[in-house]
Amino acid sequence: MLRLPGANPRTPGHLISAADLTRDDAVLILDTAEEMARVADRPIKKLPTLRGRTVVNLFFEDSTRTRTSFEVAAKRLSADVINFSAKGSSVSKGESLKDTALTLEAMGADAVVIRHSASGAPYRLATSGWIDGAVVNAGDGTHEHPTQALLDAFTLRRRLVGADAGLGKDLDGVRVTIVGDVLHSRVARSNVLLLHTLGAHVTVVAPPTLVPVGVGAWPCTVSYDLDEALPETDAVMMLRVQRERMNAAFFPTEREYSRRYGLDTDRMNRMPDGALVMHPGPMNRGMEITAEVADSPRATIVEQVANGVSIRMAVLYLLLGGNEPAVSHHRPEESK
Amino acid sequence: MLRLPGANPRTPGHLISAADLTRDDAVLILDTAEEMARVADRPIKKLPTLRGRTVVNLFFEDSTRTRTSFEVAAKRLSADVINFSAKGSSVSKGESLKDTALTLEAMGADAVVIRHSASGAPYRLATSGWIDGAVVNAGDGTHEHPTQALLDAFTLRRRLVGADAGLGKDLDGVRVTIVGDVLHSRVARSNVLLLHTLGAHVTVVAPPTLVPVGVGAWPCTVSYDLDEALPETDAVMMLRVQRERMNAAFFPTEREYSRRYGLDTDRMNRMPDGALVMHPGPMNRGMEITAEVADSPRATIVEQVANGVSIRMAVLYLLLGGNEPAVSHHRPEESK
Amino acid sequence: MLRLPGANPRTPGHLISAADLTRDDAVLILDTAEEMARVADRPIKKLPTLRGRTVVNLFFEDSTRTRTSFEVAAKRLSADVINFSAKGSSVSKGESLKDTALTLEAMGADAVVIRHSASGAPYRLATSGWIDGAVVNAGDGTHEHPTQALLDAFTLRRRLVGADAGLGKDLDGVRVTIVGDVLHSRVARSNVLLLHTLGAHVTVVAPPTLVPVGVGAWPCTVSYDLDEALPETDAVMMLRVQRERMNAAFFPTEREYSRRYGLDTDRMNRMPDGALVMHPGPMNRGMEITAEVADSPRATIVEQVANGVSIRMAVLYLLLGGNEPAVSHHRPEESK
Repeated sequence: MLRLPGANPRTPGHLISAADLTRDDAVLILDTAEEMARVADRPIKKLPTLRGRTVVNLFFEDSTRTRTSFEVAAKRLSADVINFSAKGSSVSKGESLKDTALTLEAMGADAVVIRHSASGAPYRLATSGWIDGAVVNAGDGTHEHPTQALLDAFTLRRRLVGADAGLGKDLDGVRVTIVGDVLHSRVARSNVLLLHTLGAHVTVVAPPTLVPVGVGAWPCTVSYDLDEALPETDAVMMLRVQRERMNAAFFPTEREYSRRYGLDTDRMNRMPDGALVMHPGPMNRGMEITAEVADSPRATIVEQVANGVSIRMAVLYLLLGGNEPAVSHHRPEESK
Repeated sequence: MLRLPGANPRTPGHLISAADLTRDDAVLILDTAEEMARVADRPIKKLPTLRGRTVVNLFFEDSTRTRTSFEVAAKRLSADVINFSAKGSSVSKGESLKDTALTLEAMGADAVVIRHSASGAPYRLATSGWIDGAVVNAGDGTHEHPTQALLDAFTLRRRLVGADAGLGKDLDGVRVTIVGDVLHSRVARSNVLLLHTLGAHVTVVAPPTLVPVGVGAWPCTVSYDLDEALPETDAVMMLRVQRERMNAAFFPTEREYSRRYGLDTDRMNRMPDGALVMHPGPMNRGMEITAEVADSPRATIVEQVANGVSIRMAVLYLLLGGNEPAVSHHRPEESK
Repeated sequence: MLRLPGANPRTPGHLISAADLTRDDAVLILDTAEEMARVADRPIKKLPTLRGRTVVNLFFEDSTRTRTSFEVAAKRLSADVINFSAKGSSVSKGESLKDTALTLEAMGADAVVIRHSASGAPYRLATSGWIDGAVVNAGDGTHEHPTQALLDAFTLRRRLVGADAGLGKDLDGVRVTIVGDVLHSRVARSNVLLLHTLGAHVTVVAPPTLVPVGVGAWPCTVSYDLDEALPETDAVMMLRVQRERMNAAFFPTEREYSRRYGLDTDRMNRMPDGALVMHPGPMNRGMEITAEVADSPRATIVEQVANGVSIRMAVLYLLLGGNEPAVSHHRPEESK
């Protein structure tokens, strides 16, 4: 499982793209994450599973949040973590991705968690034969951010289907609306693909200029009118406005964007009772989401962060666990 | 103990300000640090106390020394340490302190050690309800740096009252002179407050332009004449001259500052026998202190650094130790 | 062993220069590294040897590769690792090397791994009396990089003499050619000295302008003609061209350098069967070495990186191991 199509069954798995995951793969990760979430309730919040394994965070783009989430996850599994920032490294002296990869492999990296500004870099790393270890995509260009999509699905299942009662279940029939700069969002792409695989119905709402050209091929509905979409949704995901990628041509002002695509209390109240408000963070409070909405009981933003650690523990566990005791050995009833 | 006034007794404690510490709080920390200091003498310099706990160093200002001291302290207690520098993080994309705090809380931070350029940031973090974990102030603006004051008090008690023989004791009647840029010094403020609480008599000596406006309310004597103060002191603390904060209006030249407020051998010899020379580091050798004085047997500068690790172990232990075995279980005679 | 000449036998050892190592010292390190290399084959790739010890990476120059190699090595030995970058530290506020050293010593550093742009900085650190811990030179100016030379010797012995069968052996009679900017290369200097100590015959090949003035005193042959040297060599080490140090006066163009001193397939084929191609990394593919050569079966570049971890484990083990169980306890036959 979690192997790329056609990969040698003896090579370790990778997690490159939400598109690679079958429904069963995804449900297995969600179920494993449920078990990992229980580790946080223990007196000693650690599993010995990955002791002696080395997880390298190879970040070509700054992202303290995502890097920290993987670091916490790996340490909870007792792995050693090496933070390998491309800044000030050989990379800045012109070393190729290939030579960086060969170096990390030679140093004994069991997993490489890669964040890169170029779409496709993690795929190249995983399929090149440069490394034997597992590759985990922590966000590549405008392509994918699969652990973000998994933690969002985990959050939806916990809230809308029920935590443990949801084990084995997918998101059949759940209606999710994704709002904002879909064009530049790897979060949007990964979510559309994974949510569809899990049986959800997805609508993307974006300004016409911020919809990708090929969106017709995506398994989702496209809308330009947020107010129309909200009454028919079980959860809305507000995307971060990436101001550095915005362009005066798209929107005259931030206020105009906010007025048409931002989520305030009035809009939130058009959603059905119990519908959720999600955001991958970091938020621009007052821009795509108001402070009142961000702090409302419907918002799952903080839960998403906590769930991110559980999902990343599950992914590292499943990719590296090898011959170690199965996760089920760590179920609370057995570990006491 | 170590709780803010009025805090819910079930919330964890915080260490925000020397002003919050009662005499008993402070003596407990000093006594605990004595026990922690013994861990450095063991074959394996670690206690298992905080295994599975996560300490986050949240540094909005660079400070490799202080960050490293907390990192060493937390690792000696077997905690996992996450260094979360604000540079290159979401913070630089405009994320608020609130959202950073919520994120760290959600990732499972048991303690957040915060260094911030804004006075009051740690207090806000501790009292906001954003996080359940313990908050430790590692220096905020020109406000406070309580672990520095505690390690200074620890050094004074060890040298002037006697190490283990001093257990339970305070600094009753010890005379301390603090010299330099008191206006901009969080170290000075924390020391004045804590030393007073512990029974010491404090004199601050500074150029008139570098004395805070409200110093009249501080529990100390103010002087402008270093030579007059030295014969009546048991320890002198030389503050670092923060050149970036100095202003031509205050002092014409560094030489002039050095001549009037720097400590050289001649001046040191005016102190009583056995009186100590302290400095929080990093020193400007030749500026506020000469190399001869810095390296003399009276100088406790290196001891202060070592004691800093013991104090930070004690603080993290007391704030996070919870139901773990009491420190006294780790006394050498019992651990063998 | 590994002590500086004349050092007190009760002080810990240091590794400052390949010149300090006797043949027996060097062979002991290589033999110990053979045992460390086996740790990577264990289910749990860790030894408990340095638990409770603190290794500080004190890097005044960026070098993610070398820092990571030491970090992986120290963590495999269960040490705590502190990365102390000079950037943003007190050093950037003007703190002297002495005060930084005193600070690290006071915090309990058992070993300081230092990279510095100034030749001689590690020697000063080791001989100053500032610190009691072990000092390991991770590259100083144009002076030395002894662990690089050791890992190169280890790679040569494994490939040309035989791995375990080579235990206790040196490189007697092995012919090594070092090619490139010898003038600025600490790697070249350390390798010439260590290879000579181990009995190898070394030739350095460089443009006349990139040969050090004192090369006459080095225990090696000097040549300006790569094509002449290659048929008589068992291994060629291609040095990285440090473009930032190159000068239009030395070479009109990179192409010209590459034509006369770069290694391509044609040149490689002039070497005897079984001769090796080495490079310390990071490579400028297409400059001092072509991609075809770098990826050929003769190239040991990736092995060198892996061997670097084993060598650094051996060095840290030998310098810090103290009263811990001897390495031989970890021999596979006994650990199973």
